[in-house]
Amino acid sequence: MITKSDIKYIQSLAHKKFREEEGVFIIEGIKMVGELIQEFPETIVHLYATQHWVDKICHQEFAGFHVTVIDEITLGKISQLKTPNQVVAVVKLPKQIPQSKTLSKWVLVLDQIQDPGNLGTIIRTCDWFGIENIVCSLDTVDAYNPKTVQSAKGSLLRINIQYIDLIAFFSSKKGVPVYAAALDGTSIHTIDVEGPAIIVIGNEANGISKEILAFATQKITIPKIGKAESLNAGIATAIILSNLVR
Amino acid sequence: MITKSDIKYIQSLAHKKFREEEGVFIIEGIKMVGELIQEFPETIVHLYATQHWVDKICHQEFAGFHVTVIDEITLGKISQLKTPNQVVAVVKLPKQIPQSKTLSKWVLVLDQIQDPGNLGTIIRTCDWFGIENIVCSLDTVDAYNPKTVQSAKGSLLRINIQYIDLIAFFSSKKGVPVYAAALDGTSIHTIDVEGPAIIVIGNEANGISKEILAFATQKITIPKIGKAESLNAGIATAIILSNLVR
Repeated sequence: MITKSDIKYIQSLAHKKFREEEGVFIIEGIKMVGELIQEFPETIVHLYATQHWVDKICHQEFAGFHVTVIDEITLGKISQLKTPNQVVAVVKLPKQIPQSKTLSKWVLVLDQIQDPGNLGTIIRTCDWFGIENIVCSLDTVDAYNPKTVQSAKGSLLRINIQYIDLIAFFSSKKGVPVYAAALDGTSIHTIDVEGPAIIVIGNEANGISKEILAFATQKITIPKIGKAESLNAGIATAIILSNLVR
Repeated sequence: MITKSDIKYIQSLAHKKFREEEGVFIIEGIKMVGELIQEFPETIVHLYATQHWVDKICHQEFAGFHVTVIDEITLGKISQLKTPNQVVAVVKLPKQIPQSKTLSKWVLVLDQIQDPGNLGTIIRTCDWFGIENIVCSLDTVDAYNPKTVQSAKGSLLRINIQYIDLIAFFSSKKGVPVYAAALDGTSIHTIDVEGPAIIVIGNEANGISKEILAFATQKITIPKIGKAESLNAGIATAIILSNLVR
């Protein structure tokens, strides 16, 4: 049985404040919850699912999960999706693992990314290109909000995402090359990144803030052939990563 | 004065059926309407704007436009934005210019793109990379819906977007190389595209349909290093275009 207070509790997790207080967030839908069960079963706190889902999916792997069967109307109430999709999982927020003092790999730094969908596609793109660490400014949109979860697809829990004061972060990483996306930098076609590096992407409207740009060892730019004034931040990140890994 | 029937008319333009019947669509917000006035004034049928916008923006260039001053409440009623932004323009739908039999440039073909935001970022990305022609399958989401307009930013009217039966399109373009995005193709890092070509991107969930894939002269793939199952369709398009123009 699901109670009114359970429903309120799940609904409250659409808000960052409650997610952080409770240390949990929501992953929804057949595909994403299916992957979650396969890949990160230990993170699942509770499943709310329709009888149909339980009948179809229930098998050995299911053992040990707390499952509450709900009807479609209740599903509609607790879901953040336009088209609720059978199952809602309450999931433990991952621990933020600090970057070691000497980086061994590439780290993507996001300075004030505001759009949750952009953040989600950036996470998914990092997962495609094997970039396992994202460091976000404290005012970057929260990675565990419903829209980001949805657009990151299954990649969210595979990436270590840390929220930290960027000035403190850069100050602790002296000596590591910092490539900052800007409109007046060196073409990404001519840059060879060797060894560990930091790649910085800025806010959708204003780019990288002045204080953060001061840490750049090289500004990098996507050459423009046409007329668009700028690129979507998720798109720019993907193009930069794709060209740097080549 | 704006009438109730004006308000209904503008609201109806959120739907493709009415846009096509009326031959117009909506562009909103200070920045985008500002660019519209600069770049494509001849396409503007009518402007609905707050007194604030008229006082601030009104100047010589304004001569000849039909402007109706509205209050914030009315703006809220006719706007499709979460945060309505001063001005709503009713704009003529651009003419779809058919591709010539022998292409002179690259054409991007979209097969069943469903997400309006994806289509918008694809249009904006094409405008960045100087690709002026997009050909969409008839079941691709409409480019003039409010979400696509918003995510395409000022690029929408700079790109010639044609909706056409793709089988008819490909049948009329024999001899032109067709590069189709797939998961099992040649790496985009090793491909050199010379001369006119067609690049095909498929549906977000299912990729390119079988009948269309049959027209491919080469399947192309973005090499994967990490674990993500797939990339967002807008992201994949951007990465492919970026690598092919290099």
